Parts: sequence; C-alpha cells; structure tokens
Amino acid sequence: MTTTSKLWGGRFSGELDALMKRFQDSMPFDIRLWDVDIRGSVAYAHAIARAGIITTSELQTLLNGLSRVRSEFAGNTFLVQPGDEDIHTAVERRLTELVGDVGKKLHTGRSRNDQVATDLRLYTLEALNHVGVASRKLQRALTDQAEAHVDTLMPGYTHLQRAQPITFGHWCMAYVWMLQRDAERLRDCERRAGVIPLGSGGSAGNPFAIDRGAIAIELGRDREAISQNSLDGVSDRDFIAEFLFCGALIGAHISRLAEDLVLYSTAEFGFVQFSDAYSTGSSIMPQKKNPDSAELARGKAGRLFGNLINMLTLLKGSPLTYNKDFQEVQEPLFDTLDTLDLTLEVMSGAVRTMRVNADRMRAALDPAMLATDVAEYLVRKGVAFRDAHHLSGRAVALAEERHIGIDALSLEDWRNLSPYFSSDIVGVFDFGRSVNSRDVTGGTSARSVREQVGKARALMAQEG
Amino acid sequence: MTTTSKLWGGRFSGELDALMKRFQDSMPFDIRLWDVDIRGSVAYAHAIARAGIITTSELQTLLNGLSRVRSEFAGNTFLVQPGDEDIHTAVERRLTELVGDVGKKLHTGRSRNDQVATDLRLYTLEALNHVGVASRKLQRALTDQAEAHVDTLMPGYTHLQRAQPITFGHWCMAYVWMLQRDAERLRDCERRAGVIPLGSGGSAGNPFAIDRGAIAIELGRDREAISQNSLDGVSDRDFIAEFLFCGALIGAHISRLAEDLVLYSTAEFGFVQFSDAYSTGSSIMPQKKNPDSAELARGKAGRLFGNLINMLTLLKGSPLTYNKDFQEVQEPLFDTLDTLDLTLEVMSGAVRTMRVNADRMRAALDPAMLATDVAEYLVRKGVAFRDAHHLSGRAVALAEERHIGIDALSLEDWRNLSPYFSSDIVGVFDFGRSVNSRDVTGGTSARSVREQVGKARALMAQEG
Amino acid sequence: MTTTSKLWGGRFSGELDALMKRFQDSMPFDIRLWDVDIRGSVAYAHAIARAGIITTSELQTLLNGLSRVRSEFAGNTFLVQPGDEDIHTAVERRLTELVGDVGKKLHTGRSRNDQVATDLRLYTLEALNHVGVASRKLQRALTDQAEAHVDTLMPGYTHLQRAQPITFGHWCMAYVWMLQRDAERLRDCERRAGVIPLGSGGSAGNPFAIDRGAIAIELGRDREAISQNSLDGVSDRDFIAEFLFCGALIGAHISRLAEDLVLYSTAEFGFVQFSDAYSTGSSIMPQKKNPDSAELARGKAGRLFGNLINMLTLLKGSPLTYNKDFQEVQEPLFDTLDTLDLTLEVMSGAVRTMRVNADRMRAALDPAMLATDVAEYLVRKGVAFRDAHHLSGRAVALAEERHIGIDALSLEDWRNLSPYFSSDIVGVFDFGRSVNSRDVTGGTSARSVREQVGKARALMAQEG
Amino acid sequence: MTTTSKLWGGRFSGELDALMKRFQDSMPFDIRLWDVDIRGSVAYAHAIARAGIITTSELQTLLNGLSRVRSEFAGNTFLVQPGDEDIHTAVERRLTELVGDVGKKLHTGRSRNDQVATDLRLYTLEALNHVGVASRKLQRALTDQAEAHVDTLMPGYTHLQRAQPITFGHWCMAYVWMLQRDAERLRDCERRAGVIPLGSGGSAGNPFAIDRGAIAIELGRDREAISQNSLDGVSDRDFIAEFLFCGALIGAHISRLAEDLVLYSTAEFGFVQFSDAYSTGSSIMPQKKNPDSAELARGKAGRLFGNLINMLTLLKGSPLTYNKDFQEVQEPLFDTLDTLDLTLEVMSGAVRTMRVNADRMRAALDPAMLATDVAEYLVRKGVAFRDAHHLSGRAVALAEERHIGIDALSLEDWRNLSPYFSSDIVGVFDFGRSVNSRDVTGGTSARSVREQVGKARALMAQEG
Repeated sequence: MTTTSKLWGGRFSGELDALMKRFQDSMPFDIRLWDVDIRGSVAYAHAIARAGIITTSELQTLLNGLSRVRSEFAGNTFLVQPGDEDIHTAVERRLTELVGDVGKKLHTGRSRNDQVATDLRLYTLEALNHVGVASRKLQRALTDQAEAHVDTLMPGYTHLQRAQPITFGHWCMAYVWMLQRDAERLRDCERRAGVIPLGSGGSAGNPFAIDRGAIAIELGRDREAISQNSLDGVSDRDFIAEFLFCGALIGAHISRLAEDLVLYSTAEFGFVQFSDAYSTGSSIMPQKKNPDSAELARGKAGRLFGNLINMLTLLKGSPLTYNKDFQEVQEPLFDTLDTLDLTLEVMSGAVRTMRVNADRMRAALDPAMLATDVAEYLVRKGVAFRDAHHLSGRAVALAEERHIGIDALSLEDWRNLSPYFSSDIVGVFDFGRSVNSRDVTGGTSARSVREQVGKARALMAQEG
Repeated sequence: MTTTSKLWGGRFSGELDALMKRFQDSMPFDIRLWDVDIRGSVAYAHAIARAGIITTSELQTLLNGLSRVRSEFAGNTFLVQPGDEDIHTAVERRLTELVGDVGKKLHTGRSRNDQVATDLRLYTLEALNHVGVASRKLQRALTDQAEAHVDTLMPGYTHLQRAQPITFGHWCMAYVWMLQRDAERLRDCERRAGVIPLGSGGSAGNPFAIDRGAIAIELGRDREAISQNSLDGVSDRDFIAEFLFCGALIGAHISRLAEDLVLYSTAEFGFVQFSDAYSTGSSIMPQKKNPDSAELARGKAGRLFGNLINMLTLLKGSPLTYNKDFQEVQEPLFDTLDTLDLTLEVMSGAVRTMRVNADRMRAALDPAMLATDVAEYLVRKGVAFRDAHHLSGRAVALAEERHIGIDALSLEDWRNLSPYFSSDIVGVFDFGRSVNSRDVTGGTSARSVREQVGKARALMAQEG
Repeated sequence: MTTTSKLWGGRFSGELDALMKRFQDSMPFDIRLWDVDIRGSVAYAHAIARAGIITTSELQTLLNGLSRVRSEFAGNTFLVQPGDEDIHTAVERRLTELVGDVGKKLHTGRSRNDQVATDLRLYTLEALNHVGVASRKLQRALTDQAEAHVDTLMPGYTHLQRAQPITFGHWCMAYVWMLQRDAERLRDCERRAGVIPLGSGGSAGNPFAIDRGAIAIELGRDREAISQNSLDGVSDRDFIAEFLFCGALIGAHISRLAEDLVLYSTAEFGFVQFSDAYSTGSSIMPQKKNPDSAELARGKAGRLFGNLINMLTLLKGSPLTYNKDFQEVQEPLFDTLDTLDLTLEVMSGAVRTMRVNADRMRAALDPAMLATDVAEYLVRKGVAFRDAHHLSGRAVALAEERHIGIDALSLEDWRNLSPYFSSDIVGVFDFGRSVNSRDVTGGTSARSVREQVGKARALMAQEG
Repeated sequence: MTTTSKLWGGRFSGELDALMKRFQDSMPFDIRLWDVDIRGSVAYAHAIARAGIITTSELQTLLNGLSRVRSEFAGNTFLVQPGDEDIHTAVERRLTELVGDVGKKLHTGRSRNDQVATDLRLYTLEALNHVGVASRKLQRALTDQAEAHVDTLMPGYTHLQRAQPITFGHWCMAYVWMLQRDAERLRDCERRAGVIPLGSGGSAGNPFAIDRGAIAIELGRDREAISQNSLDGVSDRDFIAEFLFCGALIGAHISRLAEDLVLYSTAEFGFVQFSDAYSTGSSIMPQKKNPDSAELARGKAGRLFGNLINMLTLLKGSPLTYNKDFQEVQEPLFDTLDTLDLTLEVMSGAVRTMRVNADRMRAALDPAMLATDVAEYLVRKGVAFRDAHHLSGRAVALAEERHIGIDALSLEDWRNLSPYFSSDIVGVFDFGRSVNSRDVTGGTSARSVREQVGKARALMAQEG
C-alpha cells in the first residue's frame, strides 16, 4: 500500500505507524455499513447528475458499478484491500477499479463527513425497524400467554410481598404495555434518525446546488427530511444516543421481566418452569435446572446501559464539528442492535414455551390478601375508608394472634371489631370475586385483561 | 407521635428505628409535590363523588378543605408534623384536621401507589414545560447572535483544525438546531408522561367503577390518556427515565456549546469575550478572566448523566410492581430539572452578552482553508473530483514547502500542477465568496443562515 | 456587597448577573469544608512563619483568629455574608475582621486552587474513615448473626435455584468478606487521598521556599506525603473518583445483601422477618409488612453509581490544570458519604434485629440437593467423577419420574444404576453431614464458619 | 451433538433452542481463557493427587494430556467442537479424548463455578500486568519529553486561560504522575485479584480435604492468598469491577492528555505537531492534518466508562451466589484490556514522535501572566498579600486601559500605584526567573522538574 491510496494522502509524506493504522482502522466494524453506504452513493450519483456535474451516461456507469459492488458484498466475494481504511474508501476504490475514472467523480462536493453521517442514519433506521419487529415477537408471546391465563389466579406483589390477588394474564399484559411504550419511543426516534445530512459537505455545505430534498426522497424519506445546518449535519449523532437510550430502557424492561421469571421459577415460588430449550443444568449438581435464558437476558441490561454511557461520554465536551472520536459511536450502535435482537428472540421463545403452574399460583393466595377487600366491604357499608382500613388491619392482627386465617374469624369476632360487619362478610373471601371486582380499565378482572389483549393486538397490527 | 398516626399503622406494634425513620422519610424532598398532590386529590374527589362514594356535599367539603391546604402551602404556612412521612400523608392529615371525618373518605379505592405515580406524572409534565421554556431562551439568544452575524466570517473546524470558512451566524444556528431536536424530544416525552394511572389502586385496579377518563380530563389530559394496566400503572417510571435522558442529551449539547465558548474565549482563539456578569477572576492571578459560566455549564453534564444512570440502575431487575426503591427516583428528577433550569438561564445570559470579536475571527482564516474551493474550481473545469482533490493537495504542499500562502502561488506554479488552472484561480481566494457559494439548504451562505433563522423562529413560536 | 469584596475583584468593573451568582456560588455546599479549611490554614500559617513571611507574633495572631473562626462554626454562630462565595473567602473574610490586616497575609503564595485541593483531601480522609466505621458496624452485625447460626441449615442457591445445603452462618460471612475487601479498598484510597498539594500555588508552584513536608506533618501525614507536580497538584481529583468507586462497589454489595433479604423475607421463602423498626406497612393493604429498609438500601446503588459517573464525566477531556467544572465534584462526594453513612447504619440495625426462621430454612432443603453428595459418594468408591456425576443425575431423574424424593429410592434402585452403590448410601442423605463434609478453608462446615468468624473479628479489630 | 455431551446433560431430555444456544454460548469469547484454564487444571490435578483422589501415575497422565491440549491451543490446531459451550468443557472434552477415562476424574470436587472464578482471576492478573507495562511506555515517552524540555517555557493554563509561565517539561510530568497513581492502583487491584477461589466447589466448598494453600502456591501466589468463603468465592467479581475502574480512570487521564494535545496542535495554539505516523488527512480538505490518534484516544474514555457501568449494573441486586448474568463480565474485561493496550501504545508513539514548537510556546507568554509575580514582589517588600494582589490587579487594569503590556508601565506608574514599587520591578518581567522561582518540590523550576524526572524513573524501574 502506498499512502497515496488513501483518500487524503495527497499532502502526506510519512507513513502511518502500524499500531496507529490498526487504532484508526474502522473497516473491521464499519463493513456492516456496506449496504447503506452504497444506497447513499446511488442517491448522491443521481444528485450530481441532476446538478449537471456528471452526464446521464456517466450516471448509468456509476449505478452499474455500484450495483456490481453491491453484488460482491451480497455474495461475499468483495475483497478488502489493505488500504481500505473504512467502508467509504473501500466502496469507492472498488467502484473505480470496476468503472474507471468516472468513479473519481462520485465524491464531488461530498465528504466522508456527510457520507458517514448519512450511512449511520440509514443504518439506524434499519436497526430501529429490526428491534421493533423483535420486540413485537416478545409482546405477542406475552399476549398469547395472557389470553390463555385471563382466569389464572395468582398473588400480585408490591415490595415483593403478596399484596392482592391478580391473574397471570394481567401480569403478562403489564410487560406488553411496557414494550408498547418502547415501540412508541422507537417510532419517535425513527422520525429524528430519518433526517438526511447528505449535502452538508465537509461541514460548510455543498457548493454545487444539489437538490437535497430529492436525495431525501431517493433515500425513502420526505422531501423535508433534510438537516438544516451543515455544521450540525456532519456532527449530529443524537439519533444514535436516542436509539441507545431506547435500547437501554428496553433492556431495563427485559431485566424486570427476567427478574420476575427467575423468581417465579424458583422452588419457593414454583409458578413457571422454563422448557429445556431455554434452561441449562449444573456441572456438579445434577438436579438443577437453571433459568439461564432469563438470567442472561437480565444481565444484558449492563451492556445496554454501558453502550449509552459510552455514547454520552463521547458527546461530552466535543467541539464542533466532526471529531475523530465519533468513529467510536459505531460499535455501541451495532452492539445494542445485536444484543436486543438476540435477547428479544430468546425471551420470546422462553415465554412462549414456559409451563405455567396454575396450582402453585393458586396455592400462594392467602386470605390476608383480601384485607383490602374487607376494607372495601366496610366502605360499601358506609364506613369512611381510613376507618375501614384501620378496622381491617385490626382483623388481620387478630387472626395472626390466633394463628388462623382472616377468613376463619367468627362472625362474633367481626362484630366485636365493628357493628358494620354482618354475615355477608364471608362472601369477601373469594379470590375470583376480588379479581373480577377490579373492573375499571386497566384492572385485573378477566374482562379488563381481555380488553387489554384486544387493544394491544390492534396496536401491534398497526406497526406490522 | 404514635405509630397509629401512620397511614399503615394498624397492624404494627413496634416503633420505627430513628435512623430508619430518617432513611425512609421522603418528606424533605417530596414536599415539592404539594401542588400536584392536591390537584390529584381534587380530581379523585370528583371521581368518587361521580361514583356515588361520597355525596355532593361531602365533595364540596373536601374541595374546600383541599383549597385551604393549598393556600397554606402557597402561603408558606403549612406546618409539617413529625408523623408526615410523605406529602400524601401530610396533605390527608391536614385535610382531615380541617374538614373532619369526611377527609378519611378521600383515599377510598386509592392507594399511595397510584397516587404518587400520578403526582410524579403531573410534576414531570411541568418539568418538561419548564425546561422547554428555558431551552427556548437559549435558542433565542443564539438566534439573535446568528442574525447579527450572518456575514461574520470565521474558520469552521473539523478535528479542531481549521477546515473551511464559515460564518459565526452559521455556528450559532448549529446549536439552535441541536436544541430544537431536544424540544421535539421533550414534546414526545410529554405525550408519554401525560398518561394518568389514578384508578390503579394498590396495584390490582380500582373496585369502585370510577370513571378514569373523567379523571384524566380533570387533570388536563384527553379521556384516552389513561394507563392500560394497573400493575404497570403503579410501577411505571419510564417517563422519568425518558425525561432524564432528554436532560442528559441537553446537557451534552450544552457541554459542546460550552466547550466551544471556552476555547473561543482563550487568548489563543480570542473570538469571544464573556461579559463580566458571566466571568470571574483568580485569587492569585489578577489578570485572569475566567469563563466560569461556560465551565460550570460544561461540568453539569456529569450530574445529568449521573441522574440518568441512577434511574436506569433503579429499574434494573426490579420485580413487579411497586418497590420502595422507587422512592429514589424523585431526587434525580428534581435535580435534573433544577440543573437544566439554572444552566440554560445562565447560558442564555452568557450568550446574549458575550462580545464577538469579528476581527480575530477574520484573522484566523488562512488561504489553505480554500483548498477545497481549489478542488471545486477544477471540478467546474471538468477534472474528476478525486484528481482535483489530489492536485489541490499538491498545491498546499508546494505552498508549505515555500513557506508562502497557497494564494501566493504564481500562475506558472498552478499551470505546472495542471493545465486546467488559469488566471481566474485568483478569484477562488476570497473567503466571502467561498462562504456564499455553499448555498444549499443548511449551507453556510448568508442566505441560508437567514433562512435558518426564519425557520427556527417559526418553530419556536409554535411552542410558545 | 461591592465586587471588590471578592478575592478576585481587583480588575473587574461589572457586576455578576444574579443567576450567575447563584450558579457559581459554592457556599451552600462547601460550607461543610469549614473544619478542614481552617485546619489547612493553620498548617499554612505555620509554613509561612517558618519561611519568614510572617513573624512569630503574627503567626500567633492568625492562630488565635482561626481558633475563633472555628469556634463560631462549631457553635453555629458563624454568619455567612452575601459576598462569601465559597468557604475559603468566608473564612479569610471573617479572620481579617477578627484579627485585622495580618489576616491579609495568610494567603501569601497560596491560591484557592491548592487550598481547595487540600481541603478536599482532608475531607475525603475523614469520609473514608467514616465509611469504614459504618461498614464495620454492618460487618459486626453480620458476624454476630453468623456466630449464632453456624449450625442453622439452609439451601445455598446458584441461579436462585436450590443447589447445596449450607448454613445461614456461612451465608452471613459471605457478605462480611465482601465488605472486608471494601475496607481494604478504602485503606488503599486513603493512602492516595492523603497526599498534600498545599504549596502548589495557583498551578506553577510556591515561590517562597516553604517546607511542604512540614505542612504534611502538620496535617497528620508523613513528610513524604506531598504531591510531586504542582499542575497535577491543583487539578488532581482522582482520590474522589476512587472514593466514589469504593462507594459504588459498597453500594453494589449492599444491593446484593438487600436483594437476598428482600427475597428471604417473602412469604415464599420466609427465611427472615424484619423487625417492625425496619419495616413499614401499606396504606391500603393492612396485612403487608414491607422490607423497606432493604429496598431503599438496594435502590441507593443507583445514586452511588450515578455519583461515580458524574465524576468520571467531569474528568473526561478536562484540559490541565484547574477548571471551574471541578467545583461540581463536591456534591457527589458529600452525597456518597451521606448515603453510605445512613444506609450502612440502617442495614446494620436491620440485620441485627431481624428474626431468623430456622424452621423455614430447614424445610426448604430437598434431598435432591444432595445429588452432588451422591456423586461424591461414588467418587470415594472409585468411580471417575464425570461418570459419578452422570449416575447421580440419573438417580435424580428416576426419583422425579416416580414422584418421590431421591432419598426414597430403594437399594435395588441404586444398584440397578450402579453396582458401586451399597447400603451405606442412606448415610448420604443427611444435610448436616453434607454441610460438615465441606470443611476446607472457606467451606460451609461449622468449623470453617467459626474460623471465618475469628479471622474476620481479628481483621476488624485491627482497623478499629 | 447429543445433549449428553454437555457437562450437565444427565437429567435433560429436550434440546436447546438454536438461538438460545447462541445466546448462552460463551466459547466465542472465553476461548481467550485457554491458557489460564489449563493452568488452573494443572494446579487442580496436583491438588487431587495430593488428596489421594488420583494416583501419581494418573496425575502424570493428566499433566501430559493438559500439556498436549496446551500445545494445540498454542499451535492453533485446537479444533472447537459444536458441543464445546465454554472453554472449560472444551478443554476437558479434549483432555478426555487424549488421555481416556482418567480425564473424567479431573473435575472431582471442582465445579465450573470455582473454575471460571479462578480462570478470570488468573486472566485479570495478566491483564493488570499488561496494562501496567503499556502505561509505563507512555510514562517513559512523557518523561523523555520532559527531560528534553526542562527549560522550554510555555503558558500554564487554569480555566484554559493563560495563568502563569511554566515549562513544557513540567506539563509532561503532570501526566507522568497521574499515570503513576494509576500504576499504584493497578498494584493494589493485583493484590485482590490474586486470591484463589479454587476449592470452593459449586458454592458450598470442597469435600475432599484438598490443600487450597498449595493450589495458590502452584498458581504463583502466597499460601494465604485463598478466598475465605466459598459462596463469596464463586460469586465474587469485584476484582474485575476494580480493574474496570482502574481502566476508566486511566481512560480519563488519557482523555485529558489527548484534549491538551488536540488543543496544542491547533493552528491557534500551535505548540505541538503530530508526526505523519499519528495523523491523518481529510478527504475533501487537503491542507488538513488531523490529530486522529489523540482524538480516538480521547474517545476511548467512553467505552472504558461504559464497561465499568456494564459491570456495576451486573452486580446490582444479584442474589448469592453464582448467577448466569455473570457470564457477561468477560467481554468488558477483554475490551478494557484491549482498548488500554492499543491506546497506550499509540499515545506513547504519538508523544514520542511529536514535534514541540518552543517558539510558539514562548510567543504565547504575556507579561500579564507575571501579575502574580508582581504581587509576590510586593510581599517581599512587606506588603500584605491581599493588598499586594489588589495592587497588582490594578496595574493589570491600568496596562489594559492603555493598551500596553504590564511590563511597559513606567516607574512613575508603578509608584503611583504604591510606594513599595521601585526600579527593581523590571526584574520581575522575566519569564525564566518566574519559572525558576517556583522551586519547591513539585514546582515548575528546572531543578524541580529534573528532580521529578529522577523520582519517576526510579519508581518505574521498580515496577519493571
């Protein structure tokens, strides 16, 4: 390799140090941008043809050449050369080999600065779509479980203490709604990622009166979806920070789901059992069945948070405009995409195939969990809530003192506590009744959960 | 204080340890929620009246009472009592003192879990609005400077090396557009923050058939803006994470602006000078004038990133539904709000009052910065860009070798490099021409910057 | 206040903007440095006396004055004036009021830059000591529980699945050793924090030939404990970053302990119960007893991690030497100290007073947890471990198939699996035997746990 | 592959899902542990021989086999099989193929839990050493530059404003001392990383009375360097968190050095120029010479901070003992090692080969930077420092007003300011004198910098 094979070699006399070459070489990771880089070049070829910089026939030559380069990448026959320090250099080098001198015209008015900014945006758009699809898989697995378990009673927890009876369907839907917010965030991010900076040049703008709106259309966006300031255009990586935040929050949600499932698959809870396809064993304790899928999924939160901090640290204190530090944004982008892709797929499978142990769930219900219902009973009899709550608490304390369930208190006990209690108090101690009484939108009643399932399916259908 | 003065005291016999009391006491910070807590209670009072749990006259009593509690807070006459472990307890305690037993009915079907979730959402909506207003102040200060400097030439930097001539107006607008994206993100967050969970109860839902849509309307949102799952409703704090991310990214942007201004106010650059109102001096070096406002603003990125990590860490692995850990979300929320509020105000003032030294900017322009223009000159003469770029690079090298400016090369020198050069090459060495040639949307030309100013003002006007 | 009351006011003509004043005012938080600031000034007064800059009688006047300032702070009678923008200004202002013009000599050759760097180091030394003491409290509470429970059998968990029988004492000691590593780290940090930069001046060094080693001795350090480069001396805040990391890791450990205790206090595990002094109840579910102390302690990990990220972000890309951004390091330092102090105290109390339910622990043991012991039995009979492990796994599978405990398999069953089994296999199914067989250093046997208790007590005693 | 080829396959009937297999497969990254895994196995083979579990001849067979496996890895001829889900499985599988059934005995009393914990410690010890060596390279490059420039005058900066004259040698040494603290931290971490947990078994300890101290010696540590609690032994990853923190702080230091160098290589400062071997050019602006090495090095702080947050997030709330989440610690460990290794090497080269422009540095000195010296002059004449400081400030203001240098004030001007000024004031305006007057330890005088160079070289020599 001679230094002049570098795009910027004209003025330099010395050679790059070998380690420095490795240090600054982005090709090992930015080769993933080949498709979007070529798409950007196709759009730009059209733009300079439209602006009269190349002829129609030169345009055709470039397009044919780019198409051949694309085929080489797609067919895994593209040969990376030692001088290909990044994907842009590699594509242009190969293009020029294939089509001759006209290849040297493609970069007219363009800089690697607006080129890579465009590539990263196109790539991020694909990443957003990809993560959206994978996330909907997990939503669907949860929604299916919810539908199957609208009537499966289990304890709801606050502070990890048994609080009130709910259904497993309701529990599943809680996670569906979390992921639905994530889907909305991804869509909002998509709007900002899909703004095309091509035409910003090195940083000061393009001098050849190219039609930037037409480039945006060529790249699948609206005519208006172009960046408004060239300095910002080449240095804006906010869309990646936003994607990484969306990823971090999805990671947080998965970690919550995973935590619940790890707990629920303990011997102590025993609510669910992962299928063998999503568990592993111990090398020394043969009886173990470990919820590895959920544990690993929980652990992924770390790298997703780490990728976000990586990105924010990069931005901190970076002067305008492009700085080489920004080359570092690509790896967290790729890693968050790959991590979410695989994690969401695995969690979908784990959720879809897990065995739900309705008996263990039912057995974990305790009459004391109906203390709130006792208070509500009193409210319906006319007692002020705060007094009702206090009376209910005293009933719990009395039952504990006697080492019996609250449902085993006698009518006399109840009436000693308050004359508002009468024989219909026994009707309160029915977990199914309690669940179905919470019938507002978002409540745990079977009707509400079915409504949730319907709404969620409709929203997911809209997103494809 | 007796333990029974606690909302949850009915069953407990022991006293809280004194340090534990301090550890769990949220009153010192959540007192900031007094206004939203009362608004939530007003809405809930209407809801239970509508549901027939209280009479119209009881409703009126509650509303009057809440209004008096509000006056006490507003007038700084509210007396916090030792048993007021959080704002909800304090408001209800005082309400009951003022209106008697009907105060004990307000909490019917409500839990502190759905109450605090609602409070935090109302508070976050205000925070979003507040930050938006403060951010627009900075945008306006920058836009005013931009308008005043559409023709002020300066070097544009990439890698902090002088790259191409731009205008100071264009530089200002780069930051306006960054903040504009932040404004959009705040608005998107507002949509998600403004979903009302009241009616989720402790976690299983409300059993009194209250009209949740009416509550949302009462709280200034659409009828549809209600949470869809009660478990998620009481445990969702994503809107705070999203606000903290928006804050972190605004912090990153401010740190970039601050970094540029710190650099530009060095003796070496000398482009801007902060007014005395935004600088300080040294205790031992009397000649110093330090850009403290910008330095502190840059440093605030740390706490804004830290607040985000605090929040994400809290979410990691939290089982459903509410866990006491979530009490910890309030302080980062308040801190990010206060930090942004003050930082944006100070930066607005600093930008508005700084002195721009156009002469120093102009003097920093170097003919070598027109090397790209030389290449573009050749392109217009028909040379392929890649060749043109190489020839321009050789011209720079030649000039450096001779220790002269590239604009001092003779016509013979140029023609020795390439026959495409002719006497009109001298026209290239005009920084103003270069700037105005970059006239696409987003370019640095005066026309483009004026266009940017107009668009930005229109967008800001929409947001109020 | 006139601007000239500022230490740096000599050259400035304008006034600080009111918000800017608030923005840069560190007095609200750095007032906590009063004691270390005065200690630093006492040491510096001696130094300039030794260097002949002030007379012995002037020294005495300064010392008396500083002593009076100290008394005012200690007695809460110090009056902060509007111009006291930081603790250094406040102390010097008051000193000069009290002792007259000689007060103006104290700052000779000193700068706020080396002064605040010294203050922060002295303060961090105290913080390290403070956290060490609080951490040992928790270690002692755990060690006491360990000693009381060397024979209390419980399941040990991996992947949160029951793995092998251990003792509760062994579990307690695991956390003692984690905290012991933290104690070592605090001590290492103490070595680096205790390096005195006083004598670095504004950044270039002190020109008055003061004896820096003597200052170090005055401040309780070795003569050699002085910084070696004045630029680094005024800008080094690594010791705070290191303290914040120590704090973050202690936070991680506490979060692990808290997680285990939250799990163990669920109805499902039922291994421990927090005393009323460290629990709270629910406002709507009277039967609940929530492990708030542990939950809040777990949540504190967030702010401790956030403080560390705050600090690292501040350091990123800060040019030499002092930058105003560094003012931001104080709040995370104070917050980590306060957070650890209170959290460790509360956790000590919670651990010390919790009720351990040995019966529930014992009941959670399952013969299948002895599968490893079965494999070990075979190894002792001469079977290769990998084969033994496989045979043991088959025994577990056989028992599961038959829905019986592995200890209920008949001798015939065992011998069908392998002729190496004989009647002594029944001896394997004794949890106490299993525990006591793991008798290497660090094993779960009662002897080993007693050994651990002894070693840990000895190490803690060394640290005081 | 049949499931029984898995170490834990005995009890399982289903197959792993293909994506789950990829999700949980650590072989792609933990293959890097091959050397330490084999070293651990060698030590363990000796231990079980010593305990009488295998015969001397079996030991020899195992050692020969392990030696052959080692040769295969070293010679790149080791063939990974589909069932090799991690490095431990792969090594044992291959060992058994090579030596037959005795291979099945190696794992007796050992678990992958204590095995991987040991591997990671041995690997971290190597990583610590590696980073130490690379860091000393950078220290030496800086020290050499310092020695060459003990007399090269330049401005020292605070707030990035020119503050006081210093030497470039002094500036270089500031970074040497930062890195020296890092070296100490690495050594402290080494002490904690080098504690051997082998013998902890799955989590409850080893039942075969192996001599754990002898294992530690075999692995190059002291007899006492063994973990004290088996639960902690298998789940402790603190040493990695500590290594990642050390790496993050080194990254922060490099980012500070890089920031200074990026600034100093701007046209505006012009203090240093990177050699071509550590710079690159622009694809559109041929005159540019970009400080890519320093920019990328600065950007690496992001990933180093991100790796630390990844690790801390993993630890947060992890119950005892081993959880599969911990598999995620390996990639940040490897990434921090690789990042530091390459970044430190490149920065060493960049520092060693950069050209220092002493003329530009000298030209940036401004007489106003001697204002402190003027104040010191007055102090030596008997003026109290605070008054001297104020007078000096007025002299600066007067010079500014007159648009002259402070050194151009007339004797009359000086005497008008204060009668303490006399004709010897001119002697103050000598930058070299100023520098050499700061001659305390750590000052910027040539003598002090030479002393620093000597001390630093001695410390580095101790570390090898």
